[in-house]
Amino acid sequence: MVKVKVYVTLKEGVLDPQGKAVEQALLAKDFKGVSDMRIGKYMEFYMDRDDHSDRNIQSMCKQLLANPVIEDYRYETEEVVHQ
Amino acid sequence: MVKVKVYVTLKEGVLDPQGKAVEQALLAKDFKGVSDMRIGKYMEFYMDRDDHSDRNIQSMCKQLLANPVIEDYRYETEEVVHQ
Repeated sequence: MVKVKVYVTLKEGVLDPQGKAVEQALLAKDFKGVSDMRIGKYMEFYMDRDDHSDRNIQSMCKQLLANPVIEDYRYETEEVVHQ
Repeated sequence: MVKVKVYVTLKEGVLDPQGKAVEQALLAKDFKGVSDMRIGKYMEFYMDRDDHSDRNIQSMCKQLLANPVIEDYRYETEEVVHQ
């Protein structure tokens, strides 16, 4: 088994109203000095070793996990010996 | 400035219907061998060095960024020299 972790973030320059709202909420709760909050997605899943390849994961990200028009993605994989 | 990255994930045992839906969509698109998809949130923001402390960030996570009843969080910080 391979554990895959995918991070999807909004591209720079794309407005993030959700992040802005959370930032304002933090400031309203008196947490000072917070700026530039950006909210993205974090996904983890397992893949069979035979089906796992960089090409495969990139293709999954482009087709389904991220919207390549407005989002960037990066991923990490790690071998799982026993699950 | 300090850059803070927060990862919020559902606790083990909490059902993740969004993850299940994405997993099914991947399988339907003929990406084989995917299992146990879990979807969480990834947040990044900056804090002024004076306002930044572990206690502060943990308190932000517990009060606003994560729902401690069903979610776990972890975070990383890194110093930013020039932004």
